[in-house]
Amino acid sequence: MQKTEVDILIEQLAKLPALGPRSARRAVLYLLKKKETHMMPLIRALTEVAEKVHPCPLCGNMDTTEPCSICSDPKRDRSQICVVQDVSDLWALERSHAFNGLYHVLGGVLSALDGIGPDELNIHGLIGKVQNKEVKEVIIALPATVDGQTTAHYLAEILEKEDIIISGLSHGVPVGGELDYLDDGTLQTAFKTRRGL
Amino acid sequence: MQKTEVDILIEQLAKLPALGPRSARRAVLYLLKKKETHMMPLIRALTEVAEKVHPCPLCGNMDTTEPCSICSDPKRDRSQICVVQDVSDLWALERSHAFNGLYHVLGGVLSALDGIGPDELNIHGLIGKVQNKEVKEVIIALPATVDGQTTAHYLAEILEKEDIIISGLSHGVPVGGELDYLDDGTLQTAFKTRRGL
Repeated sequence: MQKTEVDILIEQLAKLPALGPRSARRAVLYLLKKKETHMMPLIRALTEVAEKVHPCPLCGNMDTTEPCSICSDPKRDRSQICVVQDVSDLWALERSHAFNGLYHVLGGVLSALDGIGPDELNIHGLIGKVQNKEVKEVIIALPATVDGQTTAHYLAEILEKEDIIISGLSHGVPVGGELDYLDDGTLQTAFKTRRGL
Repeated sequence: MQKTEVDILIEQLAKLPALGPRSARRAVLYLLKKKETHMMPLIRALTEVAEKVHPCPLCGNMDTTEPCSICSDPKRDRSQICVVQDVSDLWALERSHAFNGLYHVLGGVLSALDGIGPDELNIHGLIGKVQNKEVKEVIIALPATVDGQTTAHYLAEILEKEDIIISGLSHGVPVGGELDYLDDGTLQTAFKTRRGL
């Protein structure tokens, strides 16, 4: 049987990380019922983003300007660089307003299983930035997984010879988190690094 | 802060039934990374469907032809009409190859809570079809919920005076289903309507 236009659209939507074939089908039916109010605006929004959004040549962020709005913002602190695994982590940190420096998107973490070595990551670009005299601190904000922490140590070793502070995010109990839902490792760390109140 | 193109796209995607803001953000990042291999094909597929797919004026199915490929297929049995709540149910029945007649999409079921009365549903169109001498059976394939069965009884009452068979889907144990996961109502029905082996 020949594939219809609807089948092709379902296939395309089902490739998105959060959707499977069944939810893609529901999404298509929903869009077909709201063609003017939702399907056309969605097509326009996708086209706008596809045309205008590019990776920033300096940090790897996705933005409409080149360099991105963070790299070109004169109010950001150029002495701090925060290394993240992916653009999604950069956006998460931006939403938290925790950091006012610049970013460096690594594009992944070292992983023997997935065959990702140092050459697959944007490590060269990071070293180039750090050798710039302006940079005083590199904050390694990689995931607290085995691969993430291996990568963090690898980066710390490489950057050791530069005259900068190298730091990482602290571990502990998430704000608003219940203790009995937490894993043992986090609880142990939270205990060991307890602070005066 | 002004909304960026990316924010607008995330908002649009988050309105889809299966996605929330977080998964929409992940989907946007995924699309941005695969612009040529996935984002552009998705835009093309959406545009194709938006331009070409319309509701069938006869049955309510969504298709590129008018009337739809089912209504215009000379091999389908025109003496049977299957009444379904929504296009998704029509597609599910088509995938099962259980039925070779024509369909009628009601567009919902009666619901006092949601304020859906007979005038909100395509009941008038169904009566018109049934009064056609060709139709011999109406199969009411509405969901086995209270609202679905109320609607089924309402339709059965209206169609009673026509000279046709009115039938509904049988209830029972789903094929491949474990008994201890089933609800009591289904088990009771499956027992009452047990059949010789």
